[in-house]
Amino acid sequence: MNITAVCPGSFDPVTLGHLDIIRRAAQMFERILVVVMSNTQKTATFSVAERCEMLKTVTAGIGNVEIESHGGLLADYAREKNAKAIVKGLRALSDFEYEFQMALTNKRLNPAADTVFLTASAENMYLSSSLVKQVGMMGGDIHDFVPECIYDNIMKKFAKSINY
Amino acid sequence: MNITAVCPGSFDPVTLGHLDIIRRAAQMFERILVVVMSNTQKTATFSVAERCEMLKTVTAGIGNVEIESHGGLLADYAREKNAKAIVKGLRALSDFEYEFQMALTNKRLNPAADTVFLTASAENMYLSSSLVKQVGMMGGDIHDFVPECIYDNIMKKFAKSINY
Amino acid sequence: MNITAVCPGSFDPVTLGHLDIIRRAAQMFERILVVVMSNTQKTATFSVAERCEMLKTVTAGIGNVEIESHGGLLADYAREKNAKAIVKGLRALSDFEYEFQMALTNKRLNPAADTVFLTASAENMYLSSSLVKQVGMMGGDIHDFVPECIYDNIMKKFAKSINY
Amino acid sequence: MNITAVCPGSFDPVTLGHLDIIRRAAQMFERILVVVMSNTQKTATFSVAERCEMLKTVTAGIGNVEIESHGGLLADYAREKNAKAIVKGLRALSDFEYEFQMALTNKRLNPAADTVFLTASAENMYLSSSLVKQVGMMGGDIHDFVPECIYDNIMKKFAKSINY
Amino acid sequence: MNITAVCPGSFDPVTLGHLDIIRRAAQMFERILVVVMSNTQKTATFSVAERCEMLKTVTAGIGNVEIESHGGLLADYAREKNAKAIVKGLRALSDFEYEFQMALTNKRLNPAADTVFLTASAENMYLSSSLVKQVGMMGGDIHDFVPECIYDNIMKKFAKSINY
Amino acid sequence: MNITAVCPGSFDPVTLGHLDIIRRAAQMFERILVVVMSNTQKTATFSVAERCEMLKTVTAGIGNVEIESHGGLLADYAREKNAKAIVKGLRALSDFEYEFQMALTNKRLNPAADTVFLTASAENMYLSSSLVKQVGMMGGDIHDFVPECIYDNIMKKFAKSINY
Repeated sequence: MNITAVCPGSFDPVTLGHLDIIRRAAQMFERILVVVMSNTQKTATFSVAERCEMLKTVTAGIGNVEIESHGGLLADYAREKNAKAIVKGLRALSDFEYEFQMALTNKRLNPAADTVFLTASAENMYLSSSLVKQVGMMGGDIHDFVPECIYDNIMKKFAKSINY
Repeated sequence: MNITAVCPGSFDPVTLGHLDIIRRAAQMFERILVVVMSNTQKTATFSVAERCEMLKTVTAGIGNVEIESHGGLLADYAREKNAKAIVKGLRALSDFEYEFQMALTNKRLNPAADTVFLTASAENMYLSSSLVKQVGMMGGDIHDFVPECIYDNIMKKFAKSINY
Repeated sequence: MNITAVCPGSFDPVTLGHLDIIRRAAQMFERILVVVMSNTQKTATFSVAERCEMLKTVTAGIGNVEIESHGGLLADYAREKNAKAIVKGLRALSDFEYEFQMALTNKRLNPAADTVFLTASAENMYLSSSLVKQVGMMGGDIHDFVPECIYDNIMKKFAKSINY
Repeated sequence: MNITAVCPGSFDPVTLGHLDIIRRAAQMFERILVVVMSNTQKTATFSVAERCEMLKTVTAGIGNVEIESHGGLLADYAREKNAKAIVKGLRALSDFEYEFQMALTNKRLNPAADTVFLTASAENMYLSSSLVKQVGMMGGDIHDFVPECIYDNIMKKFAKSINY
Repeated sequence: MNITAVCPGSFDPVTLGHLDIIRRAAQMFERILVVVMSNTQKTATFSVAERCEMLKTVTAGIGNVEIESHGGLLADYAREKNAKAIVKGLRALSDFEYEFQMALTNKRLNPAADTVFLTASAENMYLSSSLVKQVGMMGGDIHDFVPECIYDNIMKKFAKSINY
Repeated sequence: MNITAVCPGSFDPVTLGHLDIIRRAAQMFERILVVVMSNTQKTATFSVAERCEMLKTVTAGIGNVEIESHGGLLADYAREKNAKAIVKGLRALSDFEYEFQMALTNKRLNPAADTVFLTASAENMYLSSSLVKQVGMMGGDIHDFVPECIYDNIMKKFAKSINY
């Protein structure tokens, strides 16, 4: 089966939790499109270009992964790319209902693409981009939360965001 | 990618919810092994042979599905079959934590097999084998809950189980 | 509107939480049928007759309440009584999913009867028949958990149940 | 019993899920006051007048329903209208705790009005006004989510809200 | 054991629920530092100084309690004060996952301080500062929600916040 | 403050998760009574004596811990020992409501003892005695789940329990 799978997210910034999900998806499906969704109402800390750049850096070693961005509905993007799977990481309970709602909605909007959930690893169970920002912007150590190769980029950005 | 995926369960009996998950898994992975787990401490209503027979009947039209049974650990079965994915349906919240525990445990016991969750369809969200039994054994109509082709088999079994 | 409402349960034994729900239902609907469901697989501590008797005692002052018992499906009972509402108390989260499953199932089996949930009062939020039994059988004080007028009946029963 | 029941909400816009709850409430209580709460801090997409208008359109065929709006506390509104029941739809878990908090708070503020929950139908389980907006504003098809007779009104509004 | 425990929060304003947790913590640990966290992104209704003042008023009778404020990471504050315990009240489910995330994160950032949860009392189970504000600002009675000695202060503040 | 804290449980058998909670409690309170509750209706795999013995082995290096067993109500045991704290580990959501119910009930039965929750560490988040038994009895590797010094004892017991 020659399945294209989509890994959508804000990736603002990409965490070790995201990377773990991408890696595992890449062992299961032929082609992985990691897509930075730029349509969300959340104000992002990193620009779409910066987020794509960081994703390219951290997935450089994984052969079947491509990085893109999209500004419309995920269901439309999946249709356009002829993707059969939408891969999402499920952390704890708080993700569960929102992800269910999105999965059922996306199925109505595009029946050809099915959402597939992978469980976060135990050590990433409570890790999120917003936690990274909350800790990093107050000077806490985020080495355990983000891929090493983008640590400096992230901290530089945070340094600019802090209000004195 | 030539992935073998395992769909484990008690299937006591198989419901329309199970069948929906099996069908969707069969569109995503090369080879699907539906496996009746016979090691659970729950007392089953149907024998392992009866459950396998019903599964064969309802999956007859799906080309890449095979039915088996297993009495030991799921992680060992997956290793033996060289399976890379374990497919589970997630219904509502009540499944969530148990399935997470099992997914993380199976990962420790067999890191090569990753658990993949599909969401139950809205109409099967609260459907379970035990609901089928609870309703059917008291004379309620279970046509909405089980595949038509095994309806008679199930009702015959229930007729024998009822205590007068 | 001349609505008959059913308040189903095991009532093994009736608690202050049950009584609160029955009282509030009685202010909302014309006729309340409190029905002891005797079909559940749970082994009861009190006989159906004892449970009905206790319910009669504690609801003696509420005009529009009748006590019955039923051995089949709730949906059939509601149809037979021409009930338009099934009233259930929702305590905490643990009730939530099971009650949802039952409500959706009962709706399929009898579309004419709609399930209506009332929230448990804060002081009864974690009160259940099994808690009453667990505490009472080990000699704990259950005055806060059950109506005063049946306290002696319950404690007599518990005295007999204890294994020395 | 001549019960007046209140169905409060933002209805921004009214969905098929809201309409289902209103219809079912109308079969249970003598008089239904659907009330657009205008006090919430959420910025609305539709004006209070527009929301009332849409509610009138979609409930035109239900005899015992009236549409109003209110800017203060729900508990005060219920007292003023001598309402004995506050009807709310419970969808999934995410509603549960917030609705419980509001129900217990409203009971303290107005003990005469009791909150009554109806379960969302399976097909509306994950439907919300914000989902309608999220999908509709990005050009997705919302025919499954809103009553047909207000579809055009909603899409016209969304067309104006989109930023190019 | 001469344990210093930290009770962190926004306390905007302090409720009867907060006070209950502080009182109980004070019976368990030698020294309690109640700390107003001023780093959160939430816009506060009361200034840090006002919040500290109210906390001092309501804890006046508890010997081993001190009131402070802090603008950085809680983990750093705990380290600085050589605190071994971080005390948090757990109300309902909605607190649970967020508090778990914070507890595991704080443990990584400062392994010497362990988070300790106390359960809210039944009557405070759904009480929060934002509920107090929501009710109080619309003219509802908040006597059941806040310590009597700061009731007037709070209502004065609310009077100023209301937009006419 | 010279606080005696109780760590109650079935410990059937003790896991690395239990040991982590006991160790952390021992750094917070003067005296820790780990108590094997023998009153539960669950059929145990290990006898009370075996469970106490294993607990003594694994806590040998912690100075302020004593091992006891108790057959009645926990609230009575805490009163008898003049304990001011009952320490429980909270793993995931599934523990949450049951533990809340027990905490509120114990508070009513013995207001002097307050329940204190510690969060399970990330790696023990889904670890339980029943998981240990489920995996171990089917020949899976439980080295990651139980203290090394009792591994042989546990496996010997399991060898005897297996039905061929």
